[in-house]
Amino acid sequence: MREFILFSRGVTREFKINDLPNAGRMDLIARCITNAIFLSYSLRKDVKIHVVLNGPPNPPLTVTFFTNELKNVSPDERNVASHINIAIKNFLKGKKESEPGIFIEKKSFEKIVEEKVEEYGNENVIYLHKDGEDINSVKFNSNTVAILGDNKGLPEKQEKFLDKLRIKKVSLGKIEYLSSQAITILHYELDRRNLWR
Amino acid sequence: MREFILFSRGVTREFKINDLPNAGRMDLIARCITNAIFLSYSLRKDVKIHVVLNGPPNPPLTVTFFTNELKNVSPDERNVASHINIAIKNFLKGKKESEPGIFIEKKSFEKIVEEKVEEYGNENVIYLHKDGEDINSVKFNSNTVAILGDNKGLPEKQEKFLDKLRIKKVSLGKIEYLSSQAITILHYELDRRNLWR
Repeated sequence: MREFILFSRGVTREFKINDLPNAGRMDLIARCITNAIFLSYSLRKDVKIHVVLNGPPNPPLTVTFFTNELKNVSPDERNVASHINIAIKNFLKGKKESEPGIFIEKKSFEKIVEEKVEEYGNENVIYLHKDGEDINSVKFNSNTVAILGDNKGLPEKQEKFLDKLRIKKVSLGKIEYLSSQAITILHYELDRRNLWR
Repeated sequence: MREFILFSRGVTREFKINDLPNAGRMDLIARCITNAIFLSYSLRKDVKIHVVLNGPPNPPLTVTFFTNELKNVSPDERNVASHINIAIKNFLKGKKESEPGIFIEKKSFEKIVEEKVEEYGNENVIYLHKDGEDINSVKFNSNTVAILGDNKGLPEKQEKFLDKLRIKKVSLGKIEYLSSQAITILHYELDRRNLWR
């Protein structure tokens, strides 16, 4: 399984689909989801992306997309964002399973990270960061959980939390990519190592 | 210089910014442009992407984004697409330089490819294709022009045209990525080889 945890400032209320940047960079979030889940003509198998929404009014909420169950999602920002909007609406009605393969919960960044460390061991959880160990010298297993921040990165508190859990920082080289590009590159590196599922 | 040539089915008229997928997959085109030109917090230097719009009503039109001159472009699909819309509107008024760093011309895929072969030599022009030579065994110089298709790929006629010019096919591995992801991966591979500008 490959999983991604995105720390975002996405809003925790319904938002205007015609103004994604002002909904806590919901455009960035949508691009991250697209690159986590899509290939040409198909969804990847065995991929989850957990987006922690830390924006107003009632953070945190965590929205999860799980490719093995997803239906009717298209790669454009507007479509992906519309599914997040539906999830938020459903959460407000008390529904946690929003649509097939799309789940939403009142869950913090720390909580989801702890769950994944528990599930896979902290050696399989990485934090994508420019100052980390170069990915070329990192050994991966078939299970990888990658943590990343949005355009503003992780707050100090959350970085310290990852340090305490001894989560390894991994770098994609000297260049700082968009979060959505970093997801594509990590997938590519794992694809190249033939680490599927 | 790194340049990209995207063969697309994008429409050659003004389109609705709230329905990019039905404007010849303008959403896909916008994501390709974003990944060609943006890094975290900045535009790349010395990058051009030429999008050939082959959709109705008056194909072809080629829109070029050149990072060294661009201003006021954001990475979200809606923003990028709005600049294409402005370019089409300007073209209809006879204006070829639409905004700083954004140009539009009545130019075919074949013509722009020929120009780039002339400019850089055909050894520096590649066609990203799953059946090509693996990128790991390809030698690159600091100038690279990468040709790619949209979700439907290149028509047979255009593929034959590239064959005639002896343009090398290059593959990113066994997996078929979205066009926008392929752009990110090519950039990454060239970044890793320290091939800047």
